[in-house]
Amino acid sequence: MFSQTVEYALRATVHLAIHAESPQRTAAIAESTKVPLAYLSKILQGLQRGQIVHLQRGIGGGVKLALSPDRLTVLDVVNAVDPIKRIKSCPLNLMSHGPNLCELHRRLDDSMLSIEESLGTTTLSELMKKSNPSPAICEDAEVTKNDSAFVPIRG
Amino acid sequence: MFSQTVEYALRATVHLAIHAESPQRTAAIAESTKVPLAYLSKILQGLQRGQIVHLQRGIGGGVKLALSPDRLTVLDVVNAVDPIKRIKSCPLNLMSHGPNLCELHRRLDDSMLSIEESLGTTTLSELMKKSNPSPAICEDAEVTKNDSAFVPIRG
Repeated sequence: MFSQTVEYALRATVHLAIHAESPQRTAAIAESTKVPLAYLSKILQGLQRGQIVHLQRGIGGGVKLALSPDRLTVLDVVNAVDPIKRIKSCPLNLMSHGPNLCELHRRLDDSMLSIEESLGTTTLSELMKKSNPSPAICEDAEVTKNDSAFVPIRG
Repeated sequence: MFSQTVEYALRATVHLAIHAESPQRTAAIAESTKVPLAYLSKILQGLQRGQIVHLQRGIGGGVKLALSPDRLTVLDVVNAVDPIKRIKSCPLNLMSHGPNLCELHRRLDDSMLSIEESLGTTTLSELMKKSNPSPAICEDAEVTKNDSAFVPIRG
């Protein structure tokens, strides 16, 4: 149900939340999160337009979260790149139907609402809580260990 | 989050549940549910493979649900044409990661599970309950009124 774009955007932003102390190079994020570099570059542009990340070019630049991880939810990231489509009016566009949803579309929309509520109350910080049984996101440890923040971003 | 294929498959099956008394012509379903005929024909083939509908060609033929509407859930229809993709193992395929999901993927999978549970307990019959505030699905009333079941299906 979640698109590849959403999956990649979430991997990148959780990576940025974990490494929030300094800007991260696009190439290093791509390597650590296993996201193709060209695809990641486009996604980061979308995240910048959605005010989720801040891209700074040049020496000492890189990608950072635009807000603290406890102020960004998983839903914020999803909606910045591939918004959850709620059903606001009848998809059949019948004139006779009026503004109310039929039972089928009401129940499908209820499912969308429950996802919005669940992801909208999950901050990036919560994913990183030490009390969680698992890490926030899997990363390629060797790549992350050698990651240097102070190289101009590419792409 | 639900694909166009899922939307169309659900419209068609709810239409068949409402008109369960006799086989329905593909062209009539397409007209009443506003689904393009060629697209609907392909979807009906998928629904037949998934044992959701039964297609009978020739005089007196048409499309019928393969089971009673109280034995078919919305999830059955979704999974026959575009299955909900649960996250069973780490999408990053890291060797070091082992079989457990990270927090991010566990929470995304929880969302998928809640949709499965919600749609898996909603039968087509429930959508048609007279106590519901709205009809099961909107249909083009004029088209449905003139619908004749005893014409060979097309497509």
